Amino acid sequence: MAAGFSWRRAMPSLPVLDWGARYDRATFISDGIAALIVTLMLIPQSLAYAMLAGLPPEVGLYASVAPLLLYAVFGTSRALAVGPAAVTSLMTAAAIGQLAAAGSPAYWTAAITLAFLSGAMLLAMGLLRLGFLANFLSHPVISGFITASALLITASQLKTLMGVRADGHSLVELMWALGRQAANTHALTLVVGVAATAFLFWVRKGLKPLLVHLGLAAKTADLITKAGPVAAIAVTTGLTWALDWQAQGLKIVGSIPQGLPPLSLPSWNMALWRELAVPALLISVVGFVESVSVGQTLAAKRRQRIEPDQELVALGASNLSAAFTGGLPVTGGFSRSVVNFDAGAQTPAAGVYTALGILLATLVLTPALYYLPQATLAATIVVAVLSLVDFGILRRTWAYSKPDFIAVAATLLATLGLGVETGLVAGVAVSLALYLFRTSRPHIATVGMVPGTEHFRNVLRHAVQVDPTLLGLRMDESLYFANARALENHINDAVAKLPALRHVVLQCSGINDIDASALESLEAIEHRLREAGVAFHLSEVKGPVMDRLKTTEFLRHLSGRVHLTHYQAVSELTRSPSEASRVDEGAASSLPGNRSQV
Amino acid sequence: MAAGFSWRRAMPSLPVLDWGARYDRATFISDGIAALIVTLMLIPQSLAYAMLAGLPPEVGLYASVAPLLLYAVFGTSRALAVGPAAVTSLMTAAAIGQLAAAGSPAYWTAAITLAFLSGAMLLAMGLLRLGFLANFLSHPVISGFITASALLITASQLKTLMGVRADGHSLVELMWALGRQAANTHALTLVVGVAATAFLFWVRKGLKPLLVHLGLAAKTADLITKAGPVAAIAVTTGLTWALDWQAQGLKIVGSIPQGLPPLSLPSWNMALWRELAVPALLISVVGFVESVSVGQTLAAKRRQRIEPDQELVALGASNLSAAFTGGLPVTGGFSRSVVNFDAGAQTPAAGVYTALGILLATLVLTPALYYLPQATLAATIVVAVLSLVDFGILRRTWAYSKPDFIAVAATLLATLGLGVETGLVAGVAVSLALYLFRTSRPHIATVGMVPGTEHFRNVLRHAVQVDPTLLGLRMDESLYFANARALENHINDAVAKLPALRHVVLQCSGINDIDASALESLEAIEHRLREAGVAFHLSEVKGPVMDRLKTTEFLRHLSGRVHLTHYQAVSELTRSPSEASRVDEGAASSLPGNRSQV
Repeated sequence: MAAGFSWRRAMPSLPVLDWGARYDRATFISDGIAALIVTLMLIPQSLAYAMLAGLPPEVGLYASVAPLLLYAVFGTSRALAVGPAAVTSLMTAAAIGQLAAAGSPAYWTAAITLAFLSGAMLLAMGLLRLGFLANFLSHPVISGFITASALLITASQLKTLMGVRADGHSLVELMWALGRQAANTHALTLVVGVAATAFLFWVRKGLKPLLVHLGLAAKTADLITKAGPVAAIAVTTGLTWALDWQAQGLKIVGSIPQGLPPLSLPSWNMALWRELAVPALLISVVGFVESVSVGQTLAAKRRQRIEPDQELVALGASNLSAAFTGGLPVTGGFSRSVVNFDAGAQTPAAGVYTALGILLATLVLTPALYYLPQATLAATIVVAVLSLVDFGILRRTWAYSKPDFIAVAATLLATLGLGVETGLVAGVAVSLALYLFRTSRPHIATVGMVPGTEHFRNVLRHAVQVDPTLLGLRMDESLYFANARALENHINDAVAKLPALRHVVLQCSGINDIDASALESLEAIEHRLREAGVAFHLSEVKGPVMDRLKTTEFLRHLSGRVHLTHYQAVSELTRSPSEASRVDEGAASSLPGNRSQV
Repeated sequence: MAAGFSWRRAMPSLPVLDWGARYDRATFISDGIAALIVTLMLIPQSLAYAMLAGLPPEVGLYASVAPLLLYAVFGTSRALAVGPAAVTSLMTAAAIGQLAAAGSPAYWTAAITLAFLSGAMLLAMGLLRLGFLANFLSHPVISGFITASALLITASQLKTLMGVRADGHSLVELMWALGRQAANTHALTLVVGVAATAFLFWVRKGLKPLLVHLGLAAKTADLITKAGPVAAIAVTTGLTWALDWQAQGLKIVGSIPQGLPPLSLPSWNMALWRELAVPALLISVVGFVESVSVGQTLAAKRRQRIEPDQELVALGASNLSAAFTGGLPVTGGFSRSVVNFDAGAQTPAAGVYTALGILLATLVLTPALYYLPQATLAATIVVAVLSLVDFGILRRTWAYSKPDFIAVAATLLATLGLGVETGLVAGVAVSLALYLFRTSRPHIATVGMVPGTEHFRNVLRHAVQVDPTLLGLRMDESLYFANARALENHINDAVAKLPALRHVVLQCSGINDIDASALESLEAIEHRLREAGVAFHLSEVKGPVMDRLKTTEFLRHLSGRVHLTHYQAVSELTRSPSEASRVDEGAASSLPGNRSQV
């Protein structure tokens, strides 16, 4: 059962106390360099993801200060960089897009409230140690969801690249709206957008080999490559200013307020909370899963460990701080964390320096971003998210496991067709339903003895010995309510075909649990077999299962016995059937303690 | 996977063709006697359940004619008697109580529409062979639901026994409304109601022993006992007529239209359909589960079998016929079916004769029911449903399995507190969540060899031999997305504590499936172990699991091997560790076909 609430276990010790005590000059230099690189990368990314969420660009900067500081105190990953991320920003837009007009104060308040609710939920889940819940998001569902989200984000950015207005929750709606607006495409915007996109793709694919070819170290080349967005921004901003493209209709970022992140409060309107509760939960779960995956991947490379429940606390604190400093929901983003790690960040102090860097940017750099074309930001988003698209998962799951394929395809289609929230919920529901469906139709093998051994194998797969008076069955699933009747039916059908039958032995090596419904089914099986003059035996019952069966009437009145191994059962019962078959009285008392199997 | 739609499989042959061809005089007499007894019992019961559903009493009679005929043609149970039943009538009242005023024509139309939708759903589920879905209703959930429903029904009848008005969805609402009305209790009604209730309880508990004591055969005594309600009705109706109790305020059934069941049509209002869709589904599932349980219990006593999917078709046809003849949702009721069976019904023809008997009653008998007190009908309901209350299930599940106890308690409380629909859905959700929770926290045992045998057991339960260079683990659950990380964490933690470790062998005898997420976890485990210089092996992999693993990269690059038995793995790896540990190349090709375990 879940461990109860415990402050001591929830916070064994603040991670900051661990690495903070051993902080030295070398670590400071590593962290500082990493922070500089990440800051340069985060400025355009933060602006872009805020606009993706439908918020003013400065909100993205605000959400990249306080959350980094809080994560540095509470987080267990050494390299995770927290801030607005692509998928959570898309989910934020989906959650509040129908509640308020994008750009309105009510919209921003809703985003702040969403961050607050998400933070409170994450914190509560962390303190209650509910991190395991994220395990119910299967890899196929996550893959399908991320790929679909990336396509939705790309589609949503096409309008900015084309200089038109178009909205929609699903891919079909978005593409339909874009199609209707295609004639209104703004040529200059399209040129800038396409050029920036092409340049950024080339930076990703072509620049690094070129730099390496020119003699740079692979790692240096990698870091220069990450600065691609900064170059794109500098060039397009400069051209817009110099050639007055704004006057020709190119949309620019415009004036961003200079100054510290504002103090803000979430709305206490309960109607709004009810509207945002489910989206906040979904954003929390998705953000947590993304953050923990990135954190674990990076931690494993340096043989460090991260604590999922402590990560929940850290992300909760980060989101709460975003809510009180005018931000939006944040998480440990993939690209920024990888850059932070590759640039040599040793401790979360790198996050603190990054936060200071972004704070500096909000104080002095924002006027320089006035002429930044929105199309350039859209290009950075498109290039970043398209790297998340992975259609290969469809092929791989098809080859390995059809239910997993169905889960990927369902999540992908539902997310594209019905939006992120419905898509994610549908994906989880489908994957759980498929698992339950699979366990409700268990594999039940009739087993026989491999000649000359004590091993028993499926009669359909191996040449084995069977005795007409004994039916050996191996159930390859825990017995629970959804599959108990399947075993009943299987035994009923099998017994009807075997007139000489005297014993049924159920080999329980694959049965890890027997619930109350299944126990009733076993009683029904025993009862029916007894009426047909057939004894019912169990073999190789596991310890935890046997512990509970020992308390039941079923075992006391079992017509057969519980055997240590299937081999012992078969050799005993086929040697002298009459001797072993009737143990109506005292079956339980004939079970010494060491009969239980573990 | 579910079999596709197939008329031939859905209707292998009409059951009526089977028993109809061998129908003889002796069977006719048996069926006729049973039909007479059941008819006498069904008349008051049908009236009572119609009133429980908030409908005019004659609707209950109408619903006991055509459905019996249709079931006789399509049903596979020889003794099931179809008609209005306590729990489905309660659910009908709950479903339409908020849509229309009880007693209004709109209310009746809604009941007819509910029967139509329920019939269509049952028929569709039968043709699509979805009967297995009922297996997801666990015994604890059914027990909790039935007990709670019986208490709700009893509470709802108290108002009729007290002669007051009171309504409510939950037990609290009902009892609160009754409490406020207690001062208005109608004394004569209460006297009649309590007397009838007491008499009927005595008939159940005291009459049969008395009759047996007086020398009657147990079976005859049983059947006379079942006629108790008829006696209560005759006496209270006679007294009401003779003493003019109606004039003193005692509520009576009043005039029931004489004549054939009317032809009726469901509403085609889609808004109404949307309101009724979920209730119709729940009534279908509950009715099906009740019907199949009763049918299977009775069939087993005579070594007959019933076909769940064909039962869906039969119940679907029965409900559709109820919808077109002015009825309400019907199912195979428990008490009436048992009476039918005990009275000697041999074939569904008994149902046909019962239908004719009730038809006769609607034509000629209804005037005789004019003075029947409603309180008497309430008494028959209360006595019938209180026999369904089983609080013992709480004690039994507490002793055997805490998750099952939680499922019972949750269903019971949710049904009492939130009404039948929410209660049932909550019960199913809780039971599935508990199952998923359990499988997400698998039992992972470290195993060692029992000295002098080839058996491996949990080191915590047995005195076993272990080698410091080899860690043997047995996972007692199929590996899937919800528990894959648990295995990862377990192995990571274990490896950190064992510096001399060279091999980890995962004994897969309890692993019945490995999904795509779990495969990724196995790859992660293998990767991490390899980096730590530890080889990862599998043993006792089952055939169906091995078939799929063989197609994967994971198996091709496995640092260790797949071993036939855990004993072989351990004896080979601890004899000469250096020899067996590095099989980086060609691990898969060293796997002969017969390595797979079944």
